[in-house]
Amino acid sequence: MTTGVRRRMGVEERRQQLIGVALELFSRRSPDEVSIDEIASAAGISRPLVYHYFPGKLSLYEAALKRASEDLAGRFVEPHEGPLGARLLRVMRRFFDFVDEHGPGFAALMRGGPAVGSSTTNALIDSVRQAAYVQILSHLDVAEPPARLELVVRSWISLAESTALLWLDGRGIPRAELESQLVHDFGALAAVSAAYDEETAAVVRRMLRDEPADGPFGDLVARLIALAS
Amino acid sequence: MTTGVRRRMGVEERRQQLIGVALELFSRRSPDEVSIDEIASAAGISRPLVYHYFPGKLSLYEAALKRASEDLAGRFVEPHEGPLGARLLRVMRRFFDFVDEHGPGFAALMRGGPAVGSSTTNALIDSVRQAAYVQILSHLDVAEPPARLELVVRSWISLAESTALLWLDGRGIPRAELESQLVHDFGALAAVSAAYDEETAAVVRRMLRDEPADGPFGDLVARLIALAS
Repeated sequence: MTTGVRRRMGVEERRQQLIGVALELFSRRSPDEVSIDEIASAAGISRPLVYHYFPGKLSLYEAALKRASEDLAGRFVEPHEGPLGARLLRVMRRFFDFVDEHGPGFAALMRGGPAVGSSTTNALIDSVRQAAYVQILSHLDVAEPPARLELVVRSWISLAESTALLWLDGRGIPRAELESQLVHDFGALAAVSAAYDEETAAVVRRMLRDEPADGPFGDLVARLIALAS
Repeated sequence: MTTGVRRRMGVEERRQQLIGVALELFSRRSPDEVSIDEIASAAGISRPLVYHYFPGKLSLYEAALKRASEDLAGRFVEPHEGPLGARLLRVMRRFFDFVDEHGPGFAALMRGGPAVGSSTTNALIDSVRQAAYVQILSHLDVAEPPARLELVVRSWISLAESTALLWLDGRGIPRAELESQLVHDFGALAAVSAAYDEETAAVVRRMLRDEPADGPFGDLVARLIALAS
């Protein structure tokens, strides 16, 4: 995994290279199992030189997390076209791509790894959740969400996180099924909340209006009815 | 908040007193805002004496978290009698009682406070989640859950955590509504998963069979149908 050729890099270029190397290692093993020595070796430089660019492992970890956070937030962006269920399903696919690519690093972070509790780390996690929240509201075409809709969206985001974590732990269920299930979950949680709140109900009705009968939301109610009968 | 009367306590009695004092302070302010000096003062002893019983703030925090964890896990225990929805609703009430009583301490812990990342802290959080999981499976009368049912139960537990955290942040929605909504959410998530898996569907059908029409699960499907029409 060394670069083979050693050449002079600029400071920013070297920092970016080290971040990339760290992310690559964190995608195969938990960050607390990856040493600075390994990162140095994989980057083809000496351990002291790594410390020249990053004062400690935490700062390199935070820089890597920052890049991964921006990458993930970018995957939430989806054109405002077509039925909402299909849009959310495409985002779920990209989310699981990300989780798949960063498995051990994602799991360690979300389960409370060594850097959790650092204010930088927490702020980055929050920024990704906030990016997801803002995207969903924009697709729902809601500028000022009622409290119950905010709760649905934010709690569904945490559901998506925990579903992805549970998937990583053994990958016993095909990810395509979980991507689709999370879209259904969103519809189901929104529908439950709509039963308590007229404003949320109006948003859910608008959400369902443009759904095709064979789309991910379209068959949810039919399935529930079949189950209850 | 001093005890007024100073008297000799045994080691274990003093430790328990300090844990109680710490939990009381953590129920009003975030643990990272509570100093050992305050804990000492509220317990009516000197700061060095606190360190005699607990070598540092982290060890006192972990002992307090251990007591709170056992308290919360105890509240999950519910007699195996009557419809499942009503049982889950009673547990949700006791869960929100706990969250209400321990507000700032609970929020700091779940949001990644200073002690998060400590292996003891993570193990205690996991033990409470596991206690909730075991209780739910026992009420569903399932010894070896299919992977999809395990996912439903575990991801719903994380949904309950995040719902409680969002409630604490402003308490904009009455807690009774959220307790009831979480019961509905469980039914909705189980129903979605049942659509993918016959084993889970069998559990859900058994779960719904004994539900009264006016129980928390009973009206869920009716509400969804009304919404979709």
